[in-house]
Amino acid sequence: MNQNLRINGERLLSRLAEMAQIGATEKGGVCRVALSDEDKVGRDLFIEWCQAANCDIAVDQIGNIFARRNGSNEDSPAILTGSHLDSQPTGGKFDGVYGVLAALEVLETLNDHDITTIHPLEIVSWTNEEGARFAPGLTGSGVYTGVFDLEEAYACVDKDGFILGEELLRIGYAGIAAPGGRSIKAALEIHIEQGPILEEEGIPIGVVHGVQGMYWYDLVFEGQEAHAGTTPMERRKDPVAAAVSVIEKIYQLNDIYAPQGRATFGDFIVEPGSRNTVPGKLTVTLDYRHPEEAVLRTVDSEVRSIVDAESETRRIKGWVDEIWYMPPVTFSAECIAAVQHAADQLGYPSREMVSGAGHDAMYLAQVAPTGMIFIPCDNGLSHNELENAQSEDLIAGGNVLLHAILELANPQVN
Amino acid sequence: MNQNLRINGERLLSRLAEMAQIGATEKGGVCRVALSDEDKVGRDLFIEWCQAANCDIAVDQIGNIFARRNGSNEDSPAILTGSHLDSQPTGGKFDGVYGVLAALEVLETLNDHDITTIHPLEIVSWTNEEGARFAPGLTGSGVYTGVFDLEEAYACVDKDGFILGEELLRIGYAGIAAPGGRSIKAALEIHIEQGPILEEEGIPIGVVHGVQGMYWYDLVFEGQEAHAGTTPMERRKDPVAAAVSVIEKIYQLNDIYAPQGRATFGDFIVEPGSRNTVPGKLTVTLDYRHPEEAVLRTVDSEVRSIVDAESETRRIKGWVDEIWYMPPVTFSAECIAAVQHAADQLGYPSREMVSGAGHDAMYLAQVAPTGMIFIPCDNGLSHNELENAQSEDLIAGGNVLLHAILELANPQVN
Repeated sequence: MNQNLRINGERLLSRLAEMAQIGATEKGGVCRVALSDEDKVGRDLFIEWCQAANCDIAVDQIGNIFARRNGSNEDSPAILTGSHLDSQPTGGKFDGVYGVLAALEVLETLNDHDITTIHPLEIVSWTNEEGARFAPGLTGSGVYTGVFDLEEAYACVDKDGFILGEELLRIGYAGIAAPGGRSIKAALEIHIEQGPILEEEGIPIGVVHGVQGMYWYDLVFEGQEAHAGTTPMERRKDPVAAAVSVIEKIYQLNDIYAPQGRATFGDFIVEPGSRNTVPGKLTVTLDYRHPEEAVLRTVDSEVRSIVDAESETRRIKGWVDEIWYMPPVTFSAECIAAVQHAADQLGYPSREMVSGAGHDAMYLAQVAPTGMIFIPCDNGLSHNELENAQSEDLIAGGNVLLHAILELANPQVN
Repeated sequence: MNQNLRINGERLLSRLAEMAQIGATEKGGVCRVALSDEDKVGRDLFIEWCQAANCDIAVDQIGNIFARRNGSNEDSPAILTGSHLDSQPTGGKFDGVYGVLAALEVLETLNDHDITTIHPLEIVSWTNEEGARFAPGLTGSGVYTGVFDLEEAYACVDKDGFILGEELLRIGYAGIAAPGGRSIKAALEIHIEQGPILEEEGIPIGVVHGVQGMYWYDLVFEGQEAHAGTTPMERRKDPVAAAVSVIEKIYQLNDIYAPQGRATFGDFIVEPGSRNTVPGKLTVTLDYRHPEEAVLRTVDSEVRSIVDAESETRRIKGWVDEIWYMPPVTFSAECIAAVQHAADQLGYPSREMVSGAGHDAMYLAQVAPTGMIFIPCDNGLSHNELENAQSEDLIAGGNVLLHAILELANPQVN
């Protein structure tokens, strides 16, 4: 019945452009960090648009905004869709805000065509997804789903000493509703990929099946500081020799789990870090990701064995400090199917994907059936003022979101 | 005739202890950095002792102090011996100062026994050997031998903005003699080993045959910064993968030149250095030392080939920045023989050594026949407040210096 329905692409693009003016940077990016003055202006504009679209607005105690469009059965659970309006300090015009404004565009399109869904629809804008100002991120969805405690989130302090709870009050977004507990049938989040795959393969739609799990480790190697000139090799306890051997073996281990396994050694901390001194200590960070929990557990155990064995061989002390573990998320089959049907029905090439980055949908999946849609971004670039997405992809994604929501909100009775 | 002559060990130890009070630190070390107030007090005390021993004092324009004891043939060139009085900020009681005060003790011993040498004797204390305050070090010997320009040395600025030339004036040690050009028959410097070999082998005397040559490099690997979660391994340009492979291959290369080759990767500079970002750039420092110039040249060429090959394999940009090259120094056969004869004659076990660290003797060897004597230090520790040397070794070294100087200053006529 609604197969020919399409969003108003121009309106979506124009609103993305208007929102991008709030906190616009000279290089064409956006600085709209969480709970800043710019974040308030962005939230106000979003609510103004939602109210003009006849939505009811609710703000919860952590500042998450919900804009509701009634369904024909108001006793039935809602279809939730949205993302976040905050940005990185030198962020782009699409990360997060695209998911919020595409959701709004879906509701506007239904308004334009006087379509009432059976299930109510809700747009959400989560607080402090980025974590750039108040670490860690995903605060709004984390508090909503019970991953974080509200009081602990309020107490979070930025580097200038500002307190999250006070900043929320200051910008007028400390709502009264207790976070969580909304009646949700399904949730969808559309987002730019923030990676290179869709663009390189020329595919406009990523049907996201889940989110990688990840381990964050510090691999610590402690040897003995020694003079580079006077200490013979055989008398050294050189943490570098152990570390490079461990790194090579972890790369080799990860080859077994290619192409989905990802091993990143992002930082090296050397003590004392002097050109003519054998380091006394070397810490190497490891970020390891894979979509399958069983693989992550195996890699965890192997990494520890490798560090132990190489440290023993090199006669140094070596150990693994686990910093964080985030289990993989598998999205709801119903949501995945709705996205896949929409893409197929609209004739857009698509591919299954696993999200490499964290998103609010990752936490939301703990309390509601959840799915995600990805669209390509230029050069896989994100968290960067040069972040960009093509208009046709932004519009295609909006149409997939529209039809996936229609399927979820108007279930066929067989 | 003088075979039974010995230094006054108690006087040497007592003067070492007295000098160690100047800039003494709580942990038992010394902070007497170049051209500080403490350096001035140390210099003044040294000159007072030399004058009491009837030496003539000369200070050159870079602040090197020469204390001369006449020989029976004042037209003949002098035998020079000494080291430096400045220390690291958290330095020890023996590094440098032992070489200066052992030289003074040799002259005092000759005075005590009314012995006049044929060749005049000169004690030297070089300015700013350590380079801890004004980098690089070896300033006094470097200017003396023409390695450094006097004006450039004067212009050297410390981290607080103080200028070397002004500090030299301030402490009253900007002399009038132009540096260099003294008539020197031979030079000897005695020093603690600053390494573990003599102590571990239980040998009190190291007969130093030369100084290792060394290359200082930055190995630079430039890939592409990428998101740890969203960037598949096969699409990465990961500088870490290239760097660890290069480091392993350089360790393997160095195995060929064991035990004399020494490869040290002392520092890692990562950009941006974030746990969940594939680094865009990784710079690894390499300090490579070997006593043979031919080996150094081969290693230089091999290091460049390894960096090129691994960078190409990993599809990144990699290159070698050469920071410094110091060719190996071979000491004078006459000086080496004099030290060896003295150790043998005194019945001290000794071994041939190559100095791994740089010393003023390294520069002096460019203008005069030069040699060095090493004695053990506890745990090979130096540049550390815990630096220590055993009294019997300090005295043994002084006696070897005494007899080596006697051989050089009173050549046998065959």
